[in-house]
Amino acid sequence: MIPTITAFARSPDRGRGMARDMPVRWALEEVGQPYDVRLVSFEEMKESAHRALQPFGQIPTYEEGDLVLFETGAIVMHIAQGRAGLLPRYAAARARAIAWMFAAQSTMEPPILAREVAVLVERDRSWFEARLPLLDERVDARLGDLSRRLGDADWLDSAFSAGDLLMVTVLRRLGTSGLLDRYPNLTAYVARGQARPAFQRAFAAQLAVFTSQAAGG
Amino acid sequence: MIPTITAFARSPDRGRGMARDMPVRWALEEVGQPYDVRLVSFEEMKESAHRALQPFGQIPTYEEGDLVLFETGAIVMHIAQGRAGLLPRYAAARARAIAWMFAAQSTMEPPILAREVAVLVERDRSWFEARLPLLDERVDARLGDLSRRLGDADWLDSAFSAGDLLMVTVLRRLGTSGLLDRYPNLTAYVARGQARPAFQRAFAAQLAVFTSQAAGG
Repeated sequence: MIPTITAFARSPDRGRGMARDMPVRWALEEVGQPYDVRLVSFEEMKESAHRALQPFGQIPTYEEGDLVLFETGAIVMHIAQGRAGLLPRYAAARARAIAWMFAAQSTMEPPILAREVAVLVERDRSWFEARLPLLDERVDARLGDLSRRLGDADWLDSAFSAGDLLMVTVLRRLGTSGLLDRYPNLTAYVARGQARPAFQRAFAAQLAVFTSQAAGG
Repeated sequence: MIPTITAFARSPDRGRGMARDMPVRWALEEVGQPYDVRLVSFEEMKESAHRALQPFGQIPTYEEGDLVLFETGAIVMHIAQGRAGLLPRYAAARARAIAWMFAAQSTMEPPILAREVAVLVERDRSWFEARLPLLDERVDARLGDLSRRLGDADWLDSAFSAGDLLMVTVLRRLGTSGLLDRYPNLTAYVARGQARPAFQRAFAAQLAVFTSQAAGG
């Protein structure tokens, strides 16, 4: 059965692959699972039909027969658990890869997203300039820890896993902030993730949604 | 083999059970798994011996033979996966419970923690009072969504699961903020979680660390 995921009908990032359908597409490509995409508008996302699938009115969702899932981390976990390629088979290595999945979502992403939200939503507030260095420091503290742990390894725990997939996704959010520049090993790590053929296919697929809109609309 | 977790040697919340060893203790109690606790000081947490277990210099960690884990969500997942009581056996229900685990850690917790950090760290800044309503709104938006989804059910997806355990843990952080008061069903949900015998045993165990410190000097 081919799963269906949801993605933004109108890409808010102009196809740069920052929306949360990107890691789900990437995971599906890594395991070689074909999928369908249903595009939803911002209005549809907040309606009860979509909220029945996603209680917080967001994308992505994942539907596979009777199963309905939400939350990027959980969807990637589900994709990884039933198929080879994203989680090690050996139980201890698998548990460690899952630790990196949670680390990406609940330790690394919050300060990165807090900075991103401030730039988007609080840029015109009187405190923005004075507060930005605090936000940068919080991100940098986590980047420093991550850089130290990664060292000169290719991936966080020997082979590439769903933990790396989510971590690279989170680090990509730093985009042009310059915050990653102090950490050449993290910059190389992100580049390594982005160079994977599965990433490339996923990126092209989400970009095509934007490109076809731009041409058609 | 009895696992060992780490917890703060000096409880920063005076035993109110807000530290992250609490959900791990609770999960271990739910599945009936005895455990040992190693207390670490704030200094030790930042040293390389502890960072080898926890790259971000935090608690809790989980050690079981050769397996070393960090990240609350991942530790709870590991405890739940090998033992009955925290994740449904049926695959679809299990995947949905995992979705709630990620929802607790990466959708609900970030705005709640952002508010908590602001109160702790930015209280003396010029912008604190003006900014607090923004933080409250972000928390409230998520609480409204969660309240609507929970409705009058006891738990988020039929039976109590690791998803509820983490969600109750996150909502408890709102403490005396008053933000939960608008949602009687969420208040009752938290009370239901806290009334569980396993929660009570875990709470008493972490409180005993504080009480013995207070008595001992």
